[in-house]
Amino acid sequence: MVDSDNPESVFTYGAPQLKFGPGASEEIGYDLSRLGDVRRALVVTDPGVAATGLPQRVAEQMARFGVQAEVYDGARVEPTDASMREAVEHARAQGPFDAFVAVGGGSAIDTAKAVNLLTTNDGDLAEYVNPPIGDGRAPEHPLKPLVAVPTTAGTGSESTTVCVLDVLELQVKTGISHPRLRPVLAVVDPDLTMTQPPMVTASSGLDILCHALESYTARPYTSYPRKRPEERVPYNGANPVADLWCERAMGLLGKAFRAAVRDGDDVGARHDMALAATFAGLGFGNAGVHLPHANGYPIAGRVREYRPADYPQDEPMVPHGMSVALTAPEAFRFTFEADPERHLTAARLLDPSVSDGGADTLPAVVRDLMRDVGMPSGLAAIGYADGDVDALVEGTMAQQRLLATAPREITPDDVADVFRASMHLW
Amino acid sequence: MVDSDNPESVFTYGAPQLKFGPGASEEIGYDLSRLGDVRRALVVTDPGVAATGLPQRVAEQMARFGVQAEVYDGARVEPTDASMREAVEHARAQGPFDAFVAVGGGSAIDTAKAVNLLTTNDGDLAEYVNPPIGDGRAPEHPLKPLVAVPTTAGTGSESTTVCVLDVLELQVKTGISHPRLRPVLAVVDPDLTMTQPPMVTASSGLDILCHALESYTARPYTSYPRKRPEERVPYNGANPVADLWCERAMGLLGKAFRAAVRDGDDVGARHDMALAATFAGLGFGNAGVHLPHANGYPIAGRVREYRPADYPQDEPMVPHGMSVALTAPEAFRFTFEADPERHLTAARLLDPSVSDGGADTLPAVVRDLMRDVGMPSGLAAIGYADGDVDALVEGTMAQQRLLATAPREITPDDVADVFRASMHLW
Repeated sequence: MVDSDNPESVFTYGAPQLKFGPGASEEIGYDLSRLGDVRRALVVTDPGVAATGLPQRVAEQMARFGVQAEVYDGARVEPTDASMREAVEHARAQGPFDAFVAVGGGSAIDTAKAVNLLTTNDGDLAEYVNPPIGDGRAPEHPLKPLVAVPTTAGTGSESTTVCVLDVLELQVKTGISHPRLRPVLAVVDPDLTMTQPPMVTASSGLDILCHALESYTARPYTSYPRKRPEERVPYNGANPVADLWCERAMGLLGKAFRAAVRDGDDVGARHDMALAATFAGLGFGNAGVHLPHANGYPIAGRVREYRPADYPQDEPMVPHGMSVALTAPEAFRFTFEADPERHLTAARLLDPSVSDGGADTLPAVVRDLMRDVGMPSGLAAIGYADGDVDALVEGTMAQQRLLATAPREITPDDVADVFRASMHLW
Repeated sequence: MVDSDNPESVFTYGAPQLKFGPGASEEIGYDLSRLGDVRRALVVTDPGVAATGLPQRVAEQMARFGVQAEVYDGARVEPTDASMREAVEHARAQGPFDAFVAVGGGSAIDTAKAVNLLTTNDGDLAEYVNPPIGDGRAPEHPLKPLVAVPTTAGTGSESTTVCVLDVLELQVKTGISHPRLRPVLAVVDPDLTMTQPPMVTASSGLDILCHALESYTARPYTSYPRKRPEERVPYNGANPVADLWCERAMGLLGKAFRAAVRDGDDVGARHDMALAATFAGLGFGNAGVHLPHANGYPIAGRVREYRPADYPQDEPMVPHGMSVALTAPEAFRFTFEADPERHLTAARLLDPSVSDGGADTLPAVVRDLMRDVGMPSGLAAIGYADGDVDALVEGTMAQQRLLATAPREITPDDVADVFRASMHLW
């Protein structure tokens, strides 16, 4: 994509330590006690997860290891700057804490990242938010250890260096991104995902799928000009280590995704989905995502009336994975020409029986999967029409940090074409 | 292997952060400056690597970032308790240091691990050595950040939690093993390996090969009885994450190994070998190695006259990778029945054209590779005869920590059979 006399030759890879398997979440007290001199810990969760009793059980495990733990259950699903500030104020008032434990989906983990950042470093949230919305300030001081315990198989936040939030006043989704935000330990217990209802499993599974596919088809790290060390960011573009995780995640998804949605009690499928989520998180946490995720922001943000099954019905919403997946088939048709072989390999990893249909191969595989797990048939089915395209395009084009990872230059017209073609996928 | 009513369901995965690529070693000053409040650092290396000037250049990079660096070039190739104590005494006298940087092969990295351990925790080396030789004492205090810069593609020490040493008085090779020993950052620069002569490339390449093959064929983590959290060790046995790294390492080796030995200037092959070494290190650092590595200890330890090309000629020695590989074909014939499909998959990853020859498939592929990279034709070619087998078996059986990772129970007679069949491999 960029012709450079001095192409990038270096990539970086970061990951939390990992504990994976049924029962892993029963050992967090011990794990926390090994992270240094931890006397007081804050468990960050949301009200829905708190109602399951899990965060309280995790806190009680810690007491057995001499750690005084307090549960904060005010994390908001789809966190906002307001909800994060509230969590930070609580923690600043109740602290200091020696460690944080996030129990929940990406929202709880992201809230815990913000709380960790702003109880170890001074200033306001907005200073740390990515430019142009915030100042992109880097934390001066090290953060405390954060242990992430995902209860949904999908977000990958347990592996990444970002926290995503809605800035209410500006009506935009943005984030904070710094290597110090990454959890030190991810505890992934597939048993915690057994109660996910079908639409939640489907939507979070599509988030996994897009993490893997977008990282795998991302602009390769060697296509950038050579960076100085201080310019390196956690998202390198496609690289041999991210490829490895993404390829395996796709193989697992291809086998387990339909089964996990069809029968939530399928222990093997739940296990493989949790593994796929972890692997895809490790992949995209080092490569980055691009067009489908960029499109997902305005699709979720501009929702009017859509209320999906299995989610709270009090407010209209498009679940994150659904918002990302709805333009994925057409996005991968657009990126195909950047690296046809990679797109075909991805299609074959998801469906080993697929035959080469050129640029439509991967879109067709993704569409089939979406239909089989019960996704709406396109943007029209969740309430969008051609008249919304200009506003959606504007929302996508604001996500320049993500679009920079795409394997082709993307114009507003390109994005409009993708949105229009995504109105009716089947 | 073990029938348990309560099988293990959890595995762990730990890894250093990674920076990989040509030129990566030019940024260590910057990387170190990001690891916290680092004012003084000790660069640990051996005299051979010091003579290349690289450790001094690394120290000078640090000065530019306000880090006062000192080079200690007394690490011994194949470190002993005596050489490690000397390094520790030097560091205790010159310290305190805020960070350590190891530049060299496994010996320099392992020495730096011991220095880090014993300048942050009190007591003598012997207290920390694995039982029964030492007390297996766990460090009470956190260690300082250790950055590992491997200059040979092979050892994997940059990824692991162990340091290996010879205890001179007892004439045994043993180690210290604790999660806190793991480097926080591995900087892998394939350019540093370009000057490795053919026999060094061949021997360290076989070390990579055996890391990958032994981890991949190791006893699966699910075959152990369920552990309590405090019983978990970094080596889990074969698991889905270690498998991922090992499979990719084998694929890379199958393509690049012969080329890297044949033409040391083949940049692509050197790149892929460095990547294979890193991946295999991440694999075995979490799964563990078994019979070939256990056999390698007495094979190296009891050497009489053998002096390989491209190594210092002043003392007889069997390079580590060679010592491990010489019994690998017969070891994998022995372990075949534990999981035939896994052995066949490994053979196909190394040589996609291989046809299924049952238990001889993998041994044949490994033998061909060894012959093509210039290995001696068996134990007889490095001076061993059937009369040595009893002593070699005794040395292997002392490595119970490694044998416990094997996928089958191993008796002294089994080991004797492997040694005898390895006298003449072709």
